[in-house]
Parts: sequence; C-alpha cells; structure tokens
Amino acid sequence: MPAGCAPFSQAEYDRRIAKTRAAMAEAGLDAIFVTDPSNQAWLTGYDGWSFYVHQGVILRMEGEPEWWGRSMDALGGQRTCWMAAENIHGYSDHYIQSTVYHPMQDLAEHFTRMGLASARIGVEMENYYYSAKANAVLTEEMPNATLVDATALVNWQRLVKSEDEIAFIRKAARISEKVVQVAIDRAEPGVRKNDLVADIMHAGITGVGDDWGDYPAIVPLTPSGLDATAAHLTWNGEPMKKGEATFFELSGCYRRYHAPLCRSVFLGTPPAEMLDAEKAQIEGIEAGLEAARAGNRAGDIARAFLDVLSKYGIKREGRCGYPIGLSYPPDWGERTASIRTEDETILEPGMTFHFMPALWMETWGLETTETILIRESGSAEPLCNMERKLFVKP
Amino acid sequence: MPAGCAPFSQAEYDRRIAKTRAAMAEAGLDAIFVTDPSNQAWLTGYDGWSFYVHQGVILRMEGEPEWWGRSMDALGGQRTCWMAAENIHGYSDHYIQSTVYHPMQDLAEHFTRMGLASARIGVEMENYYYSAKANAVLTEEMPNATLVDATALVNWQRLVKSEDEIAFIRKAARISEKVVQVAIDRAEPGVRKNDLVADIMHAGITGVGDDWGDYPAIVPLTPSGLDATAAHLTWNGEPMKKGEATFFELSGCYRRYHAPLCRSVFLGTPPAEMLDAEKAQIEGIEAGLEAARAGNRAGDIARAFLDVLSKYGIKREGRCGYPIGLSYPPDWGERTASIRTEDETILEPGMTFHFMPALWMETWGLETTETILIRESGSAEPLCNMERKLFVKP
Repeated sequence: MPAGCAPFSQAEYDRRIAKTRAAMAEAGLDAIFVTDPSNQAWLTGYDGWSFYVHQGVILRMEGEPEWWGRSMDALGGQRTCWMAAENIHGYSDHYIQSTVYHPMQDLAEHFTRMGLASARIGVEMENYYYSAKANAVLTEEMPNATLVDATALVNWQRLVKSEDEIAFIRKAARISEKVVQVAIDRAEPGVRKNDLVADIMHAGITGVGDDWGDYPAIVPLTPSGLDATAAHLTWNGEPMKKGEATFFELSGCYRRYHAPLCRSVFLGTPPAEMLDAEKAQIEGIEAGLEAARAGNRAGDIARAFLDVLSKYGIKREGRCGYPIGLSYPPDWGERTASIRTEDETILEPGMTFHFMPALWMETWGLETTETILIRESGSAEPLCNMERKLFVKP
Repeated sequence: MPAGCAPFSQAEYDRRIAKTRAAMAEAGLDAIFVTDPSNQAWLTGYDGWSFYVHQGVILRMEGEPEWWGRSMDALGGQRTCWMAAENIHGYSDHYIQSTVYHPMQDLAEHFTRMGLASARIGVEMENYYYSAKANAVLTEEMPNATLVDATALVNWQRLVKSEDEIAFIRKAARISEKVVQVAIDRAEPGVRKNDLVADIMHAGITGVGDDWGDYPAIVPLTPSGLDATAAHLTWNGEPMKKGEATFFELSGCYRRYHAPLCRSVFLGTPPAEMLDAEKAQIEGIEAGLEAARAGNRAGDIARAFLDVLSKYGIKREGRCGYPIGLSYPPDWGERTASIRTEDETILEPGMTFHFMPALWMETWGLETTETILIRESGSAEPLCNMERKLFVKP
C-alpha cells in the first residue's frame, strides 16, 4: 500500500482533524501527542501491532499530522498512513525496552526540532500506551514545555460517527451476527470450550463475503456456569456441561471497527429464576432502546433499563454500556461517555454504543446485549439482527 | 474453579514470591503494586481479560499477596487466584472510566487500611497498565508514602524458568509447530490472507491433543511483499500473489505461556539476493545457537549472528530477540534482557528467549526464528522442531 491507502477519504480525515483542532483550541494547546492507537488510526490511518513500544501522532494547529515511532515501524507508517513520507519519523532500536535509554528522549528532541520546546502540549495521561515513566521522562527532557492532560480529547471527537464510519460498523455487525450464530449452533454438552472458540475465531476472521475479518480488540469471553458470574474470564479446555448457562461476549471487526453482540446459551432446562431474569432483561433492553434517542441523556438509557429490573426485584449495579467504534486492544470501548445513571452526555444522531445490560448473578451470568445507533428521530437502531433471548438447547 | 485452581503448585508460587521478596528487600521496599498482567498471573494465577481497567497485585514482605481490581473482576480473582477470598478486593464500578473519580483513590484507601500509608511502595512506572494519570493520582492521594520505580522488578525474577514453566513452554511449542505448518501448507497464490489467518487461529486455539490453545499475546503477523518490509503489519483480505515472500510471525500459547516461531514462504522462484540472505540468516542462527550457552552473555548471541551477516555483506541493526514465557497482550516478550550486542546479561540454564534474527530489507522481509532454552551445558536447545529454511512453493 502506498501512502494514501488509509481506509477513509481525505475529506473524512480532514473533518476529523478540524474537529480535533477545535477541541485543542478550546484547551489552549499548541499540539497534542496522541498515544492511543485508536486515536492514531482515526487521525492518520496508522495500523499495525506495534503499540507495545512507544509511538504516537503529533498534531499541531496547522500542517499534516506527524507519526513518530520505532524505526522499523515507520515503514509500516509509510504503508498505512495517508501523510507524506517526510511526516513519518522513526527512532533508533537502542531505545527499545532499554534499561538505559527511553524513547521519550528522542521524542523531546523531535519536539524541539518542530519548534515545540516551549509549547503547551496535550498528552493522554490516562492511556495504556503513555506510561507513568514516559510522562516522567518527557517532563524532565522538556523543562520549558507545558505538558497538559488531554486524556480522551480525541476520543470525544470520535463519539458521533460519520456515515462512512457507520458503514464500517454495519459491516462489523454482519460479522458479529455470524460469530454469535456459530457459538449458538456449536454449543453442546461435551464440546470443549476452546474448540468452540476456535470456530468462533475462524468465522470472525473469515468475515462475510468481501468484508474480511480483522481482530477484535477483546478476545472471545465465553465462561460457563459459575465462571459466568465473573465478567471477564476467557476460555479453557473443559467440555460444556448440561445444566449450565454460557455467555458469549463477542464482536466482529471490520478494519478495526466493532459491533459487539452478546448472547447466552443454556444447555438443558434453565431454572425458573434465570427465565424470570431473562424476561426482565429483555423488557429492560426494550425500555433502554426507547430511551436511547437524540436529545435524551446517556443516563436515561441506564435508568430506563434499571427501572424495569427494579420492577422485577432485581438489583444491579455498574455501567450498562459505552460507546464503540474504532478500537485496538485491550478495550473495544471508546472510554468517554458511559451508559450509567449519573452520565449527563446528550445523545446525538450518529452515536454508537454497546448497550450492555448483562446480569452477573450469584451462581450464573446472562449476557444479552446490542450495539445501537442513535437516530435522527425515534428510538435507537440495534445494528445486529439476532433474536433477543436466552437460547435454550434441551 | 474454586480457589486453588491456579495452574501451578503452591510450592511453585511460594518459590516465585520468595524470589520477588529478595529483590524487594534489596530495593528497600515495604510492598510492591504489580500492574503487569503477566506479573500478576505469575505471582497469583490471576487470569482474565480485565486488564483494560485498573487492577493489580499487592505484595508485602509477609503474608499472602492481595489482588485488587474492579468488583466484577474480583469474582474472577476468586476463581483463578490461589489466595483466600479475603485477599481478593473489589472497587466500585463508579470509578470505571469516569471523568470524575479514579480507581487509584480507592487503592490509596486500601493501602492505608493495610498500614502502608507511610510505606516505600514499588510501582511499575514503565508498564501499559500503570498510566501516567494513575501514578499522579496515587502520588497525590498518598502524601506520606514513597512511590519507588520498580519497573520489571518481577519480570527479572521470571527470567530463569522452573521445570514446570518449561513444561508449559514445550506444550506451547507443539502448538507453534502446528500453526506454522498450517500457514506453510495453506499459502498459495489466490488465497485471501484473512482466510489463511482464520485457519492459523483455528489451529492455535484447538491446540494439540489435550493441550488446549490459549490466545497468544500478539495476533498473527503475516505481511507479504512490500508489506513485509515493515515489522508489525497484521493482515488484510488481499489474495496472496506469486513472486512474493510472506513471513508468518506466530506463537502457540498454552495457559498464557508462549513459544514464538516464525517462518517465511515464497510463492514462485525467489530472487537470488533473497536466497543469499536466507543462507546468511540460517548460518547466523546456527552461530547464535552455539553462542547461546550458560555463562555467555545475551549480547554474545547477537554478535555471533551479526558476524555471520557481516561476512555476507548484510548490514542489520536492532534487537535480535528477547526473553519469552508467560504473557498477556500487547507483547509476548518479557521486557528485561535483550539479545543485542550491548546487553551484558549472563545466560543461565532455564532462560528462554525468542531468538529473532529477522531481516527486513528494502523490498522484502524474511523471518526465520527460534524459541530457545539455555541448557546446563552445550548450545541452546531450539524448543520447536521445524525445518529452518525459506519455504519455496513454485
């Protein structure tokens, strides 16, 4: 791929940069250093599994963004970013995981060459890929600069999706339907969980038609029985058992865009309390979808859902969802708004959330969720088409 | 899994903790707060895809370690850690990805309850899962404590593997052989790369016999042609082409233990310069294996390899490998020693490295690598059994 092979049009990237610069101006920043791989990809198209070493995008108020990272990954930058090769910068390998050198020493020199030695530079203080040490070294190496916390400044610009992005999420949703269907079809007593996950992954990476599958930012979460009382266990080699519920927390991924979709399967005859909870959960989802409309708040979705649960005598704490779209491991959420009662974010058309009204109970767990799109008017559109119920296989 | 279902014996965990405490004593620490998921698993057995929120293991000089994390993940802690339930602590969901609260506020209170308000506490300043913000909040909330950089303190204790760990890595190696064989067998002109990756993943998660496959810490890296000049591109939906080399950077994973193995495939007739480079690379690997013996230094492996390359007139910069074993995304390396000329780490029996003498050239890339075990005497043992060559499919 020559420069220009990033997945979106130049107009789309220009739109994103203009939006980001408006937020930078409001924060009084001369530049931002963007370490979140999702933000890097959103601004420049950069794509590669290289985020385990220090790298980032530098955006000033004018000119093209610059990509900075390990020398061997600068070649990947040239092949995936839309910018000119002169705006892709590599640092030497002796900085990599060294006990003596730190890549932020190179970045400080680069900032100085860019005329940013005394600038106000936004950094993502709360990010997996901007370590406490990185911040300490950069602060020390740039005594005249002011590093300002710009956590999620770019993430917030991603909250309302463009038509092009929604098209990508719809493709991911087709893949999500496929992988969840595979999980439901394959779940049987005696099937080893890892064999089932192998089929899920195969289906997800194969994709649907010409829409090839990318890797989701979270691996399949597929716990059964008591393991399903915990939210984030993955899988093991144990055979599935009669009398247990298993939840499948999965997402298709199309060119880094996600559409998470969870369903649960019970092998055998579910206990009455699980069926009662299922009823409450599904009615609660419907209430949540009704509340998920432009002009309402993110918290309204949670309240609508929780009110139904209360009616059924079910107490639930914690978040009920988060925005989704472009993402890299370890999280497919965007880490801005949350679907929880105290969140005051006003819903706008084009926002996409994983509405995640899962129930983790004392002895079992039940996940039935939807990726939803806030519309111009009316209730939210669930982007996946998958029967909303506990799948029972007697 | 009840408490005690961690994958290793109590004696093994006790050994690890004793080793870690010796390093803590040397550093004058009262406690460490371990955020690296690999270090958490190594000390306690904790396993789950929950590292995208703040969590960690607290180890003092006496008593059981404590696991601290999100409430819903504390249930996962009870199901995967070997410690008593009273040593698994959960914080409330209102701290999660909040713009108002930070989980380190809860951790500071917990430290205080533990009597650590004025302690010297080691933190992993250079880690994906200890953000700049986490460090800033913890520092502010604990004015009387001294936070000390203990980056890689635990990682260094992991460098020499126990017999039990080596047994796990050998199982991973069987899976690695299988996935690389699938890649070689399936590579043909016209095969979409994602379809090939789907088969690789299926084989890896299926595992070998009773040894079920876990997710590797890095997804398959499978670039072809010019994309293979960059080190860390993943895949897309393009069909493979005649006249191109593709490298496969893969690893099997058995219960979070890795044994990376890379091989390259050329479809058609390789150019002479690639065959010359292959010869140099393979002779260089043999020289590296000879140098990889107890008492030598990590740098000696790199020197032996690079000397052979020089003889053939090939200039190569950068690292040639790193220690491997237990790991979580985004990196399967241990981030301590490196196989590079300046590294003075003395090799000891039981160390395991991914010896990674890849060549990324101007118009193509060639990866032929080995996971190696340093033995009591003699040259290193390659843990995978896979012909060491460029695989040519005319």
